[in-house]
Amino acid sequence: MSDLADLSLQNSGSAKKPQDLRQFTTQELYNFLDSFDTILSDCDGVLWNCHTPIPGALATLKELQDKGKNVYFVSNNSTLSMKDFLKKLHTQGFPARKEQIIIPSLVVVWYLKSIDFKGEAYVVGTDPFKNVLRENGIKVAPPEPDSVKEDLAEVVKALQDVPSIKAIIHDFEPNYSWMKIMRSIVSLRRDDCLYIAAALDNKVAVGAEHPLLGTKVFTDIVSEFSGREPTLTGKPSKLLKQYVYKNCSIADPERCIFVGDTIQQDMGFAKLCGFKKLFVSSGVTSLEEVLKEEHLRPELYIPSIGGLLPLLKNLPPEDARAGRKPQ
Amino acid sequence: MSDLADLSLQNSGSAKKPQDLRQFTTQELYNFLDSFDTILSDCDGVLWNCHTPIPGALATLKELQDKGKNVYFVSNNSTLSMKDFLKKLHTQGFPARKEQIIIPSLVVVWYLKSIDFKGEAYVVGTDPFKNVLRENGIKVAPPEPDSVKEDLAEVVKALQDVPSIKAIIHDFEPNYSWMKIMRSIVSLRRDDCLYIAAALDNKVAVGAEHPLLGTKVFTDIVSEFSGREPTLTGKPSKLLKQYVYKNCSIADPERCIFVGDTIQQDMGFAKLCGFKKLFVSSGVTSLEEVLKEEHLRPELYIPSIGGLLPLLKNLPPEDARAGRKPQ
Repeated sequence: MSDLADLSLQNSGSAKKPQDLRQFTTQELYNFLDSFDTILSDCDGVLWNCHTPIPGALATLKELQDKGKNVYFVSNNSTLSMKDFLKKLHTQGFPARKEQIIIPSLVVVWYLKSIDFKGEAYVVGTDPFKNVLRENGIKVAPPEPDSVKEDLAEVVKALQDVPSIKAIIHDFEPNYSWMKIMRSIVSLRRDDCLYIAAALDNKVAVGAEHPLLGTKVFTDIVSEFSGREPTLTGKPSKLLKQYVYKNCSIADPERCIFVGDTIQQDMGFAKLCGFKKLFVSSGVTSLEEVLKEEHLRPELYIPSIGGLLPLLKNLPPEDARAGRKPQ
Repeated sequence: MSDLADLSLQNSGSAKKPQDLRQFTTQELYNFLDSFDTILSDCDGVLWNCHTPIPGALATLKELQDKGKNVYFVSNNSTLSMKDFLKKLHTQGFPARKEQIIIPSLVVVWYLKSIDFKGEAYVVGTDPFKNVLRENGIKVAPPEPDSVKEDLAEVVKALQDVPSIKAIIHDFEPNYSWMKIMRSIVSLRRDDCLYIAAALDNKVAVGAEHPLLGTKVFTDIVSEFSGREPTLTGKPSKLLKQYVYKNCSIADPERCIFVGDTIQQDMGFAKLCGFKKLFVSSGVTSLEEVLKEEHLRPELYIPSIGGLLPLLKNLPPEDARAGRKPQ
């Protein structure tokens, strides 16, 4: 087992095999704990799969928080309201505060406020996503009708431009429709209309079942037909990096660990931020798959973050450690 | 002006410039009329743009029918019912019979009957499309709900496989939705479920306005996520060629002319069938665009099929022609 000092190699471009936390000696585990102040964790596939909690995952993060680590949840999933998010965490034993949760809808609000956005936003997204915008003073344009008359002339009439729409915002929604895509394309023909995308996942994992279609395929259609590219707000975007740096008071990114189960979104975002990457295979990606992406290869691995809990619980008292000051 | 005998060069692979019907001498026009027995015409962009008739288009086809030519309408547009199609043609002065109209929904029925299909068909398409299937004894599965609860577990529940669905059939529909795409993907995981696509146009022309999103982008998503490829029934498919050959009693394809305004669908279908290609620029494609596709280059051109009418009307009586038998 190499020394934990190897973690500093993360930005050197070498593609070393990730260190498996389960193989760590007591000393290495203490070094690991000493190596970070902040741990940021993805949610779907790390803490739970759909409504099924991943055993020990939140208990592990609570143990780390109790040990003085700053814990944040950084999810691309804005389909839960902030209230439901907190409830889900509380029910599973993690005493989360609102400030610990970071989802794309919050980043969208933060971005729109930063540019003093005043118009109406047309949102393809779930009600919880829209509600975060509304609660923060963003005007949300009314949605398209659920069903339009099947007559091309009527459709064209229904698709007349709505000049008050000054932003098109796309997030996952299981009621994605042709009219919503067309409304987006029509609005984006105007230069004064912003184009923002939140979760751009191609697939949405729902446990052992086949994945659901994510937002990306639809946003790709809008981009192609409008000739516009969206400003990104979810993982792995630069705006989210700025948001996280500011709201999680990141002083030294090398003293942060990001835990995730996806390659592009989680490992990609961790790399963008300069965080250490801890990969878990409890979600949508296998260890083999993530290792293929050499430039996003994680430094650390454990099958499930919950597997860390017994290792932490079994550590001898810190003051028993040789060469270490009691806290 | 080269002799009309040049028309026979169509299959030689040469990419000659198309002959402009407006430049024809009287003799060339007579030779042109003598060169075909059957004229098959696209509708959108050739006869009308949305609800606006293209001047003289149907009057020209009526004149040709009155001169003894077999006239057929071959459209990828199944969003009009057969009744509405006939009404549209009759109102614009063309005394069409049902048998003269060929749309993908009819080809779907013909194909399903040919394989003795007994199951339920899940149809993404307009009511007129579905009605053609129903009227011909095909069981159409109920559609997805207009709106689904925004909860992933509920969505997964709503997407349980429906084993009675034995065919997924895609055509244009302005109420395309995420649930319809997901239902298609879920059903196509079963090998006993057929996958059929009708109009696979990427864009739907609606006159001078920007085009609407066609079916192809959505069928592409289903194909990608299911790993299946659809059996095609619209232009330019082999099944449609078989249908046209049989139902239009095509004896000699070289004595057929296909009139169209699109490259892949119309010129592509005409080439597949071995018909002469008459391109019109009254629809979605310019002459410059069609000429770029050398292998689909039309032999004949006129800006609008309606432009042929005065040329036909101004022809001297046939028996006045030198070297031609009076009819």
